[in-house]
Amino acid sequence: MILQKEFTLRARNRGFHLITDEILVQLPDLPLTGLLNLFIKHTSAALTINENADPDVQTDMGKIFDKLIPERDPIYEHTLEGEDDMPAHAKSTIIGVSLSIPITNKKINLGTWQGIYLCEFRNHGGSRKIVATIYY
Amino acid sequence: MILQKEFTLRARNRGFHLITDEILVQLPDLPLTGLLNLFIKHTSAALTINENADPDVQTDMGKIFDKLIPERDPIYEHTLEGEDDMPAHAKSTIIGVSLSIPITNKKINLGTWQGIYLCEFRNHGGSRKIVATIYY
Amino acid sequence: MILQKEFTLRARNRGFHLITDEILVQLPDLPLTGLLNLFIKHTSAALTINENADPDVQTDMGKIFDKLIPERDPIYEHTLEGEDDMPAHAKSTIIGVSLSIPITNKKINLGTWQGIYLCEFRNHGGSRKIVATIYY
Repeated sequence: MILQKEFTLRARNRGFHLITDEILVQLPDLPLTGLLNLFIKHTSAALTINENADPDVQTDMGKIFDKLIPERDPIYEHTLEGEDDMPAHAKSTIIGVSLSIPITNKKINLGTWQGIYLCEFRNHGGSRKIVATIYY
Repeated sequence: MILQKEFTLRARNRGFHLITDEILVQLPDLPLTGLLNLFIKHTSAALTINENADPDVQTDMGKIFDKLIPERDPIYEHTLEGEDDMPAHAKSTIIGVSLSIPITNKKINLGTWQGIYLCEFRNHGGSRKIVATIYY
Repeated sequence: MILQKEFTLRARNRGFHLITDEILVQLPDLPLTGLLNLFIKHTSAALTINENADPDVQTDMGKIFDKLIPERDPIYEHTLEGEDDMPAHAKSTIIGVSLSIPITNKKINLGTWQGIYLCEFRNHGGSRKIVATIYY
């Protein structure tokens, strides 16, 4: 069986943000066993799972990706939408917009140190639309 | 319930290619609500979602990944299959071969600017096999 | 319907490891048609699919990612857990912790050259927990 819900995450600054609780509050009661797919409907943001403890990990992650895909690289032709735009597209494809997480005993079955991250790659990305699909 | 279909994408030049329509034409009637998984059965290509409007994004994406994982890097030992081969394996793992997309109201539920990309990393990759699995 | 099983992979050295057979031996009889999701419950390891033939691909992949996200980069603030830790988090997010593979005719439907890789990014990562979810 399938449950599906579309909702919006509030606008955030550029960077990596822990959103596990903000996702969970949007979901219906979870089934005993299943899988949750989260899909972000944008091309300059991404979803991932990473460390939920030290906020420095989130900051470092932002710096690592900014270094990996720098702004103002002369190879870019797609520049009209801002210096942060083409790097945002590349980062979104590197990390991905679709994330599947197992559900076990009516909870998402993350490891002890895992949390869900919204990766916001635009300086002013605005609110972001998510589709959550639960199958069980 | 599960529907599954395997099909082939025609050979393409090395680069990022928008294939949303070519995928959709291969699929059966979509269910009211569900999830579509696309899986590419190769280790030197990938599937992603990115901008469907400006073709420069696709060109830039190719240049970004060629710069990120350059050819002829002396660290490579796996060189017998061509200079483009080991970089292709790395790019495939960075972007990924499996992509899940929500289905809503009998359509794939992409954002306004999202399209499905075939990422072809070989100079002569040939046709590429896809498995589409729909669960609902 | 959903089948789910959690199991542990034995500790491995830092690097990319082909684990297709070790995964398959853990799974129940596979359904005729379906999808398998593998989820690794850690933030310094990842799962991917890549070449199953030449072991040099696995070695090269390790070198490529070590070069892409080097240790001892002065931009890192999260350094207390070791020089390999923050790079491991970044690599985990680049490759991903969740992998979906189609099931066809009671087998995982990989391409001829595809195998499942455990990407171990820590020097001493220890054993790793996997959740396998099969839906059909």
